[in-house]
Amino acid sequence: MNEANAASGDRTEFRVEPGSTVHLDALHACAELAALRSKQLRKLLTEQVRRFARLQERLYAESSRALLLVFQGMDAAGKDSTIKHVTSGVNPQGFRVTNFTRPTFKEMEYSWLQRHWPALPERGRIGIFNRSHYEEAVTLRVHPDLLAARKLPPQPVDDNFWQERLRDIVAFERHLVRNGTTVVKFFLNVSKEEQRRRLIGRLNRPAKNWKFDPSDLAARQHWDAYHRAYEAAFEATSTAEAPWYIVPADSKPAMRLIVASIIVETLTAMAPEFPKPDAKLLQAISEAREQLGA
Amino acid sequence: MNEANAASGDRTEFRVEPGSTVHLDALHACAELAALRSKQLRKLLTEQVRRFARLQERLYAESSRALLLVFQGMDAAGKDSTIKHVTSGVNPQGFRVTNFTRPTFKEMEYSWLQRHWPALPERGRIGIFNRSHYEEAVTLRVHPDLLAARKLPPQPVDDNFWQERLRDIVAFERHLVRNGTTVVKFFLNVSKEEQRRRLIGRLNRPAKNWKFDPSDLAARQHWDAYHRAYEAAFEATSTAEAPWYIVPADSKPAMRLIVASIIVETLTAMAPEFPKPDAKLLQAISEAREQLGA
Repeated sequence: MNEANAASGDRTEFRVEPGSTVHLDALHACAELAALRSKQLRKLLTEQVRRFARLQERLYAESSRALLLVFQGMDAAGKDSTIKHVTSGVNPQGFRVTNFTRPTFKEMEYSWLQRHWPALPERGRIGIFNRSHYEEAVTLRVHPDLLAARKLPPQPVDDNFWQERLRDIVAFERHLVRNGTTVVKFFLNVSKEEQRRRLIGRLNRPAKNWKFDPSDLAARQHWDAYHRAYEAAFEATSTAEAPWYIVPADSKPAMRLIVASIIVETLTAMAPEFPKPDAKLLQAISEAREQLGA
Repeated sequence: MNEANAASGDRTEFRVEPGSTVHLDALHACAELAALRSKQLRKLLTEQVRRFARLQERLYAESSRALLLVFQGMDAAGKDSTIKHVTSGVNPQGFRVTNFTRPTFKEMEYSWLQRHWPALPERGRIGIFNRSHYEEAVTLRVHPDLLAARKLPPQPVDDNFWQERLRDIVAFERHLVRNGTTVVKFFLNVSKEEQRRRLIGRLNRPAKNWKFDPSDLAARQHWDAYHRAYEAAFEATSTAEAPWYIVPADSKPAMRLIVASIIVETLTAMAPEFPKPDAKLLQAISEAREQLGA
């Protein structure tokens, strides 16, 4: 991929095609973008963010469709910083970012999908899930002991239990798509070695200390189990209408550019339009012009 | 059905079996109960409500499962009065009744299922939907012009459009059932002639005037279209896990008894139990007894 291609926005190579098998460990590199210097990548990102901002304005004006962006990744994969860099420069009025940390006791009184509904974007808006409903099919699969606090009725917690959760997600997302919300999902795929470097960075730099959570190390110990659970989730839930993109995350500038490009590509395909004034509005505009002495 | 049978709680005859065809007009009578006098029916209802109250207390104490009761019916079928008579005498702390009238403009900014989520019952509780998510697959099917206000993205409004809505409902309810909410749906099946009598009652009795809505007459003019839309909905969404019951509604005392019996039957099958104190709690109880000088 040369610079022109890198900017052109064709990112289908990162998409998980329905019915395909996923091996996360084999998907860490993006050689083409790695060949570009950071300065070039940042310049390309700026261009994509500008396109994103223009498309967002049309989506907002059109006010009939919505966009949901889901971000998942291992700790230190760069979810927060990617959301920050890709959306900064776009009108915050059109956005809502919701961080799904562990559910509250009150939230656990309901089904696990419930707390995600109030965070969905209304027509014309973009909703961003920083972690999402996938946690309940991935993190809990790795740590099924957490299910106890959910107070579910007694039932076997077998493979079928998790497949049912994934099927519920497919139905949930399909409903959203049918009703005008485009759904795009990003897995920021950091390698274990790069995660180690980033976690050490959090330990060594006082300004980054606040981001360190001792539980990150515990999750790291279950790296393979997490990857297996994620792979099963991607294979079951990457549909034509709500695809997963697995984005190489070891180079932050490249990752941000890829994510921004996929968003721009998605919005371009949605082709939002400023509403066309109808005859009545044109008449009102003409009258207003007269009244204001224009 | 004699009086003993009427009290025994076997109401499977009213259930819509998955895969069956529904003809609402052929389902208005309940000869067995009609043979009983009103006084007998009221006595049997009182017994069922008492059972209901005892089972609800266990459900609340157990606090791991929930019950969702959905009520649909043509105008004047008796939704409000049935809910009132069947639940009066049961602890209101364990209940929430939500009335789904036409959606607000704000609600129409989201997918049509969204506004139903915050009304779902948490673990240990009973949620009652007076009208429900089915309105969007029935009333809107009869009056597709109402779709314009929903600002959906352009798409053909054909048979498939409505079948997709019904499939979304099946997936939604299946998710609830999987996560511990039992779902039971009642259609109060009033005949056109009995509806006429009840509407006249609203016009003639000043204390009932407030219940009269001129739009009821408009809906009555589309009686057949409503019945066809309801039949399609029942055939598509009466599943083993979330069945529809079509309850004859021309006799109010009989209807109330049937609804109460089905609820009691459902809760009896759920068999909620008071939580058993564990060793730690038994120890604490023994210590507390000592401390209080018992």
